[in-house]
Amino acid sequence: MKLYGYWRSSATWRVRIALNFKDIPYEYIPVHLVRDGGEQLKDWYQTLNPSQQVPTLEVELDGSTRHLGQSMAILEFLEEFKAAPAMLPKDLYLRSRTRQLAEIVNSGIQPHQNLSVLNHLKALKVDSNAWSRKWISQGLVAFQTVVEETAGTFSVGDSPTWADACLIPQLYNARRFSIDLKPFERLVEIESVCAELECFKKAHADAQPDAQP
Amino acid sequence: MKLYGYWRSSATWRVRIALNFKDIPYEYIPVHLVRDGGEQLKDWYQTLNPSQQVPTLEVELDGSTRHLGQSMAILEFLEEFKAAPAMLPKDLYLRSRTRQLAEIVNSGIQPHQNLSVLNHLKALKVDSNAWSRKWISQGLVAFQTVVEETAGTFSVGDSPTWADACLIPQLYNARRFSIDLKPFERLVEIESVCAELECFKKAHADAQPDAQP
Repeated sequence: MKLYGYWRSSATWRVRIALNFKDIPYEYIPVHLVRDGGEQLKDWYQTLNPSQQVPTLEVELDGSTRHLGQSMAILEFLEEFKAAPAMLPKDLYLRSRTRQLAEIVNSGIQPHQNLSVLNHLKALKVDSNAWSRKWISQGLVAFQTVVEETAGTFSVGDSPTWADACLIPQLYNARRFSIDLKPFERLVEIESVCAELECFKKAHADAQPDAQP
Repeated sequence: MKLYGYWRSSATWRVRIALNFKDIPYEYIPVHLVRDGGEQLKDWYQTLNPSQQVPTLEVELDGSTRHLGQSMAILEFLEEFKAAPAMLPKDLYLRSRTRQLAEIVNSGIQPHQNLSVLNHLKALKVDSNAWSRKWISQGLVAFQTVVEETAGTFSVGDSPTWADACLIPQLYNARRFSIDLKPFERLVEIESVCAELECFKKAHADAQPDAQP
Protein backbone atom coordinates (compact mmCIF):
# COMPACT_ATOMS: atom_id res chain seq x y z
CA MET A 1 0.00 0.00 0.00
CA LYS A 2 0.98 3.60 -0.52
CA LEU A 3 -0.19 6.44 1.67
CA TYR A 4 -0.24 9.94 0.19
CA GLY A 5 -0.22 12.36 3.08
CA TYR A 6 1.26 15.29 4.92
CA TRP A 7 3.20 15.04 8.18
CA ARG A 8 0.96 17.39 10.16
CA SER A 9 -2.37 16.48 8.57
CA SER A 10 -4.40 14.95 11.38
CA ALA A 11 -6.45 12.89 8.93
CA THR A 12 -3.25 11.33 7.50
CA TRP A 13 -1.93 10.77 11.01
CA ARG A 14 -5.01 8.73 12.00
CA VAL A 15 -4.46 6.40 9.07
CA ARG A 16 -0.75 6.02 9.88
CA ILE A 17 -1.70 4.89 13.40
CA ALA A 18 -4.12 2.29 12.02
CA LEU A 19 -1.63 0.97 9.43
CA ASN A 20 1.04 0.65 12.12
CA PHE A 21 -1.33 -0.92 14.64
CA LYS A 22 -2.40 -3.53 12.11
CA ASP A 23 1.20 -4.05 11.03
CA ILE A 24 0.43 -3.34 7.38
CA PRO A 25 3.59 -2.25 5.56
CA TYR A 26 3.18 0.90 3.43
CA GLU A 27 5.15 3.44 1.49
CA TYR A 28 4.59 7.02 2.64
CA ILE A 29 4.41 9.60 -0.16
CA PRO A 30 4.47 13.20 1.10
CA VAL A 31 2.09 15.68 -0.54
CA HIS A 32 3.16 19.18 0.41
CA LEU A 33 0.01 21.14 1.29
CA VAL A 34 1.71 24.54 1.20
CA ARG A 35 4.66 24.51 -1.20
CA ASP A 36 4.04 25.67 -4.76
CA GLY A 37 0.42 26.63 -3.97
CA GLY A 38 -0.33 23.18 -2.56
CA GLU A 39 0.51 19.89 -4.28
CA GLN A 40 -2.95 18.54 -3.38
CA LEU A 41 -4.42 20.96 -5.93
CA LYS A 42 -2.28 19.67 -8.81
CA ASP A 43 -3.88 17.64 -11.59
CA TRP A 44 -1.92 14.48 -10.82
CA TYR A 45 -3.18 14.44 -7.23
CA GLN A 46 -6.74 15.48 -8.04
CA THR A 47 -6.97 12.41 -10.27
CA LEU A 48 -6.23 10.27 -7.22
CA ASN A 49 -8.46 12.26 -4.88
CA PRO A 50 -11.11 14.60 -6.34
CA SER A 51 -11.56 16.24 -2.90
CA GLN A 52 -8.00 17.59 -3.21
CA GLN A 53 -7.32 16.53 0.35
CA VAL A 54 -4.96 14.13 2.07
CA PRO A 55 -4.80 11.28 2.83
CA THR A 56 -5.25 8.95 -0.14
CA LEU A 57 -4.54 5.25 0.25
CA GLU A 58 -3.33 3.38 -2.83
CA VAL A 59 -4.07 -0.33 -2.73
CA GLU A 60 -4.09 -3.31 -5.10
CA LEU A 61 -7.51 -5.00 -5.12
CA ASP A 62 -8.46 -7.85 -7.46
CA GLY A 63 -5.70 -6.84 -9.85
CA SER A 64 -6.64 -3.16 -9.98
CA THR A 65 -4.84 -0.21 -8.42
CA ARG A 66 -7.42 1.69 -6.33
CA HIS A 67 -7.25 5.05 -4.61
CA LEU A 68 -9.29 5.53 -1.48
CA GLY A 69 -10.03 8.91 0.06
CA GLN A 70 -11.52 10.19 3.34
CA SER A 71 -9.78 9.03 6.50
CA MET A 72 -12.84 7.46 8.15
CA ALA A 73 -13.61 5.49 4.98
CA ILE A 74 -9.98 4.35 4.93
CA LEU A 75 -10.09 3.27 8.60
CA GLU A 76 -13.23 1.21 7.87
CA PHE A 77 -11.51 -0.25 4.79
CA LEU A 78 -8.44 -1.29 6.78
CA GLU A 79 -10.66 -2.97 9.38
CA GLU A 80 -12.42 -4.99 6.67
CA PHE A 81 -9.18 -5.68 4.77
CA LYS A 82 -7.28 -6.97 7.81
CA ALA A 83 -9.58 -7.71 10.73
CA ALA A 84 -6.90 -8.52 13.34
CA PRO A 85 -5.71 -6.84 15.41
CA ALA A 86 -8.98 -4.92 15.60
CA MET A 87 -9.25 -1.19 16.21
CA LEU A 88 -13.00 -1.47 16.81
CA PRO A 89 -14.46 -3.23 19.87
CA LYS A 90 -16.57 -6.36 19.29
CA ASP A 91 -19.55 -5.09 21.29
CA LEU A 92 -22.14 -3.42 19.06
CA TYR A 93 -22.72 -0.49 21.42
CA LEU A 94 -19.01 0.17 21.99
CA ARG A 95 -18.32 0.00 18.25
CA SER A 96 -20.92 2.69 17.82
CA ARG A 97 -19.45 4.79 20.63
CA THR A 98 -15.99 4.44 19.08
CA ARG A 99 -17.30 5.70 15.75
CA GLN A 100 -19.18 8.50 17.51
CA LEU A 101 -15.96 9.64 19.20
CA ALA A 102 -14.03 9.45 15.94
CA GLU A 103 -16.69 11.53 14.21
CA ILE A 104 -16.71 14.16 16.97
CA VAL A 105 -13.16 14.83 15.77
CA ASN A 106 -13.50 13.99 12.06
CA SER A 107 -16.64 15.98 11.24
CA GLY A 108 -17.05 18.03 14.42
CA ILE A 109 -13.60 19.58 14.80
CA GLN A 110 -11.21 18.87 11.95
CA PRO A 111 -13.19 20.54 9.12
CA HIS A 112 -13.02 23.83 11.04
CA GLN A 113 -9.23 23.79 11.34
CA ASN A 114 -8.61 22.52 7.83
CA LEU A 115 -5.91 24.46 5.98
CA SER A 116 -8.24 25.54 3.16
CA VAL A 117 -10.78 26.83 5.70
CA LEU A 118 -8.14 28.73 7.67
CA ASN A 119 -6.77 30.29 4.47
CA HIS A 120 -10.25 31.36 3.39
CA LEU A 121 -10.93 32.88 6.84
CA LYS A 122 -7.69 34.85 6.59
CA ALA A 123 -8.73 36.15 3.15
CA LEU A 124 -11.99 37.29 4.79
CA LYS A 125 -9.96 39.04 7.54
CA VAL A 126 -11.37 36.73 10.23
CA ASP A 127 -9.17 35.70 13.17
CA SER A 128 -8.59 32.08 12.11
CA ASN A 129 -6.85 31.15 15.37
CA ALA A 130 -9.82 32.22 17.47
CA TRP A 131 -12.07 30.35 15.03
CA SER A 132 -10.09 27.11 15.41
CA ARG A 133 -9.86 27.45 19.18
CA LYS A 134 -13.65 27.75 19.47
CA TRP A 135 -14.41 24.53 17.57
CA ILE A 136 -11.53 22.53 19.01
CA SER A 137 -12.44 23.40 22.61
CA GLN A 138 -16.12 22.71 22.07
CA GLY A 139 -15.37 19.39 20.38
CA LEU A 140 -12.95 18.25 23.06
CA VAL A 141 -15.56 18.96 25.75
CA ALA A 142 -18.00 16.64 23.95
CA PHE A 143 -15.28 14.05 23.38
CA GLN A 144 -14.28 13.99 27.03
CA THR A 145 -17.90 13.71 28.19
CA VAL A 146 -18.45 10.62 26.03
CA VAL A 147 -15.06 9.18 27.04
CA GLU A 148 -15.94 9.39 30.73
CA GLU A 149 -18.45 6.61 30.12
CA THR A 150 -16.29 4.34 27.95
CA ALA A 151 -12.66 4.86 28.95
CA GLY A 152 -10.32 2.34 30.44
CA THR A 153 -6.65 3.04 29.86
CA PHE A 154 -7.70 4.16 26.34
CA SER A 155 -10.72 6.12 25.10
CA VAL A 156 -12.84 2.99 24.79
CA GLY A 157 -11.76 0.22 27.13
CA ASP A 158 -8.21 -1.02 27.47
CA SER A 159 -6.95 -1.19 23.94
CA PRO A 160 -6.45 1.43 21.22
CA THR A 161 -9.36 2.25 18.92
CA TRP A 162 -10.13 4.80 16.23
CA ALA A 163 -11.18 7.15 19.02
CA ASP A 164 -7.53 7.31 20.12
CA ALA A 165 -6.30 7.47 16.51
CA CYS A 166 -8.43 10.60 16.11
CA LEU A 167 -7.75 12.06 19.56
CA ILE A 168 -3.95 12.06 19.47
CA PRO A 169 -3.48 14.24 16.35
CA GLN A 170 -6.29 16.48 17.61
CA LEU A 171 -4.51 17.15 20.91
CA TYR A 172 -1.33 18.02 18.97
CA ASN A 173 -3.39 20.50 16.98
CA ALA A 174 -5.00 21.88 20.14
CA ARG A 175 -1.52 22.77 21.42
CA ARG A 176 -0.61 24.37 18.09
CA PHE A 177 -3.58 26.68 18.60
CA SER A 178 -2.49 27.35 22.22
CA ILE A 179 -5.52 25.72 23.84
CA ASP A 180 -5.24 25.20 27.57
CA LEU A 181 -5.52 21.42 28.07
CA LYS A 182 -5.99 21.56 31.86
CA PRO A 183 -9.76 20.98 31.55
CA PHE A 184 -8.99 17.88 29.48
CA GLU A 185 -6.95 15.97 32.03
CA ARG A 186 -8.59 12.63 31.20
CA LEU A 187 -7.71 13.04 27.51
CA VAL A 188 -4.11 13.98 28.26
CA GLU A 189 -3.84 10.86 30.47
CA ILE A 190 -4.99 8.72 27.54
CA GLU A 191 -2.51 10.53 25.29
CA SER A 192 0.36 9.63 27.60
CA VAL A 193 -0.60 5.94 27.47
CA CYS A 194 -0.75 6.05 23.65
CA ALA A 195 2.62 7.80 23.52
CA GLU A 196 4.25 4.62 24.89
CA LEU A 197 3.11 2.49 21.97
CA GLU A 198 5.29 1.95 18.90
CA CYS A 199 2.34 2.33 16.47
CA PHE A 200 1.63 5.80 17.84
CA LYS A 201 5.32 6.79 18.05
CA LYS A 202 6.00 5.88 14.42
CA ALA A 203 2.84 7.70 13.27
CA HIS A 204 3.69 10.98 15.03
CA ALA A 205 3.87 14.07 12.78
CA ASP A 206 7.41 14.87 13.91
CA ALA A 207 8.61 11.36 12.97
CA GLN A 208 7.65 11.72 9.30
CA PRO A 209 10.21 12.24 6.50
CA ASP A 210 8.45 15.47 5.42
CA ALA A 211 8.32 16.95 8.96
CA GLN A 212 9.61 20.50 9.27
CA PRO A 213 11.16 21.99 12.36
CA MET B 1 -36.16 3.09 18.42
CA LYS B 2 -36.55 6.82 18.87
CA LEU B 3 -34.93 9.40 16.63
CA TYR B 4 -34.32 12.87 18.03
CA GLY B 5 -33.94 15.21 15.10
CA TYR B 6 -34.95 18.30 13.19
CA TRP B 7 -36.93 18.30 9.93
CA ARG B 8 -34.36 20.22 7.90
CA SER B 9 -31.20 18.80 9.52
CA SER B 10 -29.42 16.92 6.74
CA ALA B 11 -27.73 14.60 9.25
CA THR B 12 -31.13 13.61 10.70
CA TRP B 13 -32.56 13.20 7.20
CA ARG B 14 -29.83 10.66 6.26
CA VAL B 15 -30.74 8.52 9.24
CA ARG B 16 -34.48 8.72 8.42
CA ILE B 17 -33.71 7.39 4.93
CA ALA B 18 -31.75 4.46 6.37
CA LEU B 19 -34.41 3.61 8.98
CA ASN B 20 -37.11 3.66 6.29
CA PHE B 21 -35.01 1.68 3.81
CA LYS B 22 -34.38 -1.00 6.41
CA ASP B 23 -38.01 -0.92 7.48
CA ILE B 24 -37.12 -0.27 11.12
CA PRO B 25 -40.07 1.36 12.92
CA TYR B 26 -39.15 4.43 14.98
CA GLU B 27 -40.68 7.29 16.86
CA TYR B 28 -39.57 10.72 15.64
CA ILE B 29 -38.97 13.30 18.37
CA PRO B 30 -38.45 16.83 17.04
CA VAL B 31 -35.71 18.91 18.65
CA HIS B 32 -36.21 22.52 17.60
CA LEU B 33 -32.78 23.93 16.71
CA VAL B 34 -33.92 27.55 16.71
CA ARG B 35 -36.84 28.06 19.10
CA ASP B 36 -36.05 29.18 22.61
CA GLY B 37 -32.33 29.55 21.82
CA GLY B 38 -32.12 25.97 20.50
CA GLU B 39 -33.47 22.90 22.30
CA GLN B 40 -30.28 20.99 21.44
CA LEU B 41 -28.45 23.20 23.96
CA LYS B 42 -30.78 22.32 26.85
CA ASP B 43 -29.50 20.12 29.67
CA TRP B 44 -31.95 17.30 28.96
CA TYR B 45 -30.69 16.99 25.37
CA GLN B 46 -27.02 17.46 26.18
CA THR B 47 -27.28 14.44 28.47
CA LEU B 48 -28.36 12.38 25.46
CA ASN B 49 -25.83 13.94 23.08
CA PRO B 50 -22.84 15.85 24.48
CA SER B 51 -22.14 17.33 21.03
CA GLN B 52 -25.45 19.25 21.31
CA GLN B 53 -26.29 18.23 17.76
CA VAL B 54 -29.02 16.22 16.09
CA PRO B 55 -29.62 13.41 15.39
CA THR B 56 -29.55 11.10 18.40
CA LEU B 57 -30.83 7.55 18.08
CA GLU B 58 -32.32 5.96 21.19
CA VAL B 59 -32.17 2.18 21.18
CA GLU B 60 -32.63 -0.72 23.61
CA LEU B 61 -29.54 -2.93 23.67
CA ASP B 62 -29.05 -5.84 26.07
CA GLY B 63 -31.63 -4.34 28.43
CA SER B 64 -30.08 -0.86 28.48
CA THR B 65 -31.39 2.31 26.87
CA ARG B 66 -28.53 3.72 24.75
CA HIS B 67 -28.17 7.02 22.97
CA LEU B 68 -26.08 7.12 19.82
CA GLY B 69 -24.83 10.30 18.21
CA GLN B 70 -23.17 11.26 14.90
CA SER B 71 -25.07 10.32 11.76
CA MET B 72 -22.30 8.26 10.15
CA ALA B 73 -21.84 6.24 13.35
CA ILE B 74 -25.62 5.71 13.43
CA LEU B 75 -25.68 4.55 9.78
CA GLU B 76 -22.92 2.03 10.56
CA PHE B 77 -24.84 0.92 13.67
CA LEU B 78 -28.05 0.35 11.69
CA GLU B 79 -26.12 -1.73 9.12
CA GLU B 80 -24.70 -3.93 11.88
CA PHE B 81 -28.00 -4.05 13.80
CA LYS B 82 -30.10 -5.10 10.79
CA ALA B 83 -27.96 -6.26 7.88
CA ALA B 84 -30.74 -6.68 5.28
CA PRO B 85 -31.65 -4.87 3.18
CA ALA B 86 -28.11 -3.50 2.96
CA MET B 87 -27.24 0.12 2.28
CA LEU B 88 -23.58 -0.78 1.68
CA PRO B 89 -22.44 -2.81 -1.36
CA LYS B 90 -20.85 -6.22 -0.69
CA ASP B 91 -17.70 -5.49 -2.71
CA LEU B 92 -14.86 -4.21 -0.53
CA TYR B 93 -13.84 -1.45 -2.93
CA LEU B 94 -17.39 -0.22 -3.53
CA ARG B 95 -18.08 -0.21 0.22
CA SER B 96 -15.10 2.05 0.60
CA ARG B 97 -16.21 4.30 -2.26
CA THR B 98 -19.69 4.53 -0.70
CA ARG B 99 -18.18 5.64 2.59
CA GLN B 100 -15.88 8.07 0.80
CA LEU B 101 -18.88 9.66 -0.94
CA ALA B 102 -20.82 9.85 2.33
CA GLU B 103 -17.84 11.52 4.02
CA ILE B 104 -17.41 14.05 1.21
CA VAL B 105 -20.81 15.31 2.39
CA ASN B 106 -20.58 14.50 6.11
CA SER B 107 -17.18 15.98 6.90
CA GLY B 108 -16.45 17.88 3.67
CA ILE B 109 -19.60 19.95 3.26
CA GLN B 110 -22.08 19.68 6.12
CA PRO B 111 -19.85 21.06 8.92
CA HIS B 112 -19.49 24.31 6.93
CA GLN B 113 -23.24 24.88 6.61
CA ASN B 114 -24.06 23.79 10.14
CA LEU B 115 -26.42 26.16 11.95
CA SER B 116 -23.93 26.91 14.74
CA VAL B 117 -21.21 27.74 12.20
CA LEU B 118 -23.53 30.00 10.19
CA ASN B 119 -24.64 31.81 13.36
CA HIS B 120 -21.03 32.33 14.42
CA LEU B 121 -20.11 33.67 10.96
CA LYS B 122 -23.02 36.13 11.16
CA ALA B 123 -21.77 37.32 14.55
CA LEU B 124 -18.37 37.89 12.90
CA LYS B 125 -20.12 39.88 10.12
CA VAL B 126 -19.09 37.33 7.47
CA ASP B 127 -21.45 36.59 4.56
CA SER B 128 -22.57 33.15 5.69
CA ASN B 129 -24.44 32.43 2.45
CA ALA B 130 -21.35 32.98 0.32
CA TRP B 131 -19.42 30.82 2.80
CA SER B 132 -21.89 27.92 2.49
CA ARG B 133 -22.07 28.22 -1.28
CA LYS B 134 -18.30 27.90 -1.58
CA TRP B 135 -18.03 24.66 0.39
CA ILE B 136 -21.21 23.10 -1.01
CA SER B 137 -20.18 23.74 -4.65
CA GLN B 138 -16.65 22.49 -4.06
CA GLY B 139 -17.91 19.35 -2.31
CA LEU B 140 -20.50 18.56 -4.97
CA VAL B 141 -17.81 18.79 -7.68
CA ALA B 142 -15.76 16.15 -5.82
CA PHE B 143 -18.86 14.04 -5.19
CA GLN B 144 -19.88 14.06 -8.85
CA THR B 145 -16.36 13.18 -10.00
CA VAL B 146 -16.29 10.09 -7.78
CA VAL B 147 -19.86 9.20 -8.76
CA GLU B 148 -18.99 9.19 -12.48
CA GLU B 149 -16.96 6.07 -11.77
CA THR B 150 -19.43 4.20 -9.57
CA ALA B 151 -22.93 5.28 -10.59
CA GLY B 152 -25.66 3.13 -12.04
CA THR B 153 -29.17 4.42 -11.45
CA PHE B 154 -27.94 5.43 -7.96
CA SER B 155 -24.63 6.91 -6.78
CA VAL B 156 -23.04 3.49 -6.40
CA GLY B 157 -24.57 0.90 -8.67
CA ASP B 158 -28.27 0.21 -9.01
CA SER B 159 -29.53 0.31 -5.46
CA PRO B 160 -29.60 3.04 -2.80
CA THR B 161 -26.59 3.43 -0.51
CA TRP B 162 -25.40 5.90 2.13
CA ALA B 163 -24.00 7.98 -0.72
CA ASP B 164 -27.58 8.69 -1.82
CA ALA B 165 -28.76 9.11 1.78
CA CYS B 166 -26.16 11.88 2.13
CA LEU B 167 -26.60 13.36 -1.36
CA ILE B 168 -30.36 13.97 -1.28
CA PRO B 169 -30.47 16.25 1.80
CA GLN B 170 -27.34 17.99 0.49
CA LEU B 171 -28.99 18.88 -2.82
CA TYR B 172 -31.99 20.29 -0.91
CA ASN B 173 -29.55 22.45 1.04
CA ALA B 174 -27.75 23.48 -2.15
CA ARG B 175 -31.05 24.88 -3.46
CA ARG B 176 -31.67 26.69 -0.16
CA PHE B 177 -28.37 28.47 -0.72
CA SER B 178 -29.35 29.25 -4.36
CA ILE B 179 -26.64 27.13 -5.93
CA ASP B 180 -27.01 26.56 -9.65
CA LEU B 181 -27.34 22.79 -10.05
CA LYS B 182 -26.87 22.77 -13.85
CA PRO B 183 -23.23 21.60 -13.53
CA PHE B 184 -24.48 18.71 -11.37
CA GLU B 185 -26.81 17.10 -13.90
CA ARG B 186 -25.73 13.56 -13.01
CA LEU B 187 -26.51 14.17 -9.32
CA VAL B 188 -29.93 15.66 -10.11
CA GLU B 189 -30.68 12.58 -12.23
CA ILE B 190 -29.90 10.33 -9.27
CA GLU B 191 -32.04 12.56 -7.07
CA SER B 192 -35.03 12.11 -9.37
CA VAL B 193 -34.65 8.31 -9.15
CA CYS B 194 -34.48 8.46 -5.34
CA ALA B 195 -37.53 10.74 -5.25
CA GLU B 196 -39.67 7.85 -6.56
CA LEU B 197 -38.86 5.60 -3.60
CA GLU B 198 -41.09 5.48 -0.53
CA CYS B 199 -38.11 5.44 1.90
CA PHE B 200 -36.86 8.74 0.48
CA LYS B 201 -40.35 10.29 0.24
CA LYS B 202 -41.16 9.57 3.89
CA ALA B 203 -37.74 10.89 4.98
CA HIS B 204 -38.06 14.22 3.16
CA ALA B 205 -37.75 17.33 5.34
CA ASP B 206 -41.11 18.68 4.20
CA ALA B 207 -42.87 15.43 5.20
CA GLN B 208 -41.84 15.71 8.88
CA PRO B 209 -44.27 16.69 11.64
CA ASP B 210 -42.04 19.61 12.67
CA ALA B 211 -41.68 20.97 9.10
CA GLN B 212 -42.38 24.68 8.73
CA PRO B 213 -43.72 26.34 5.61
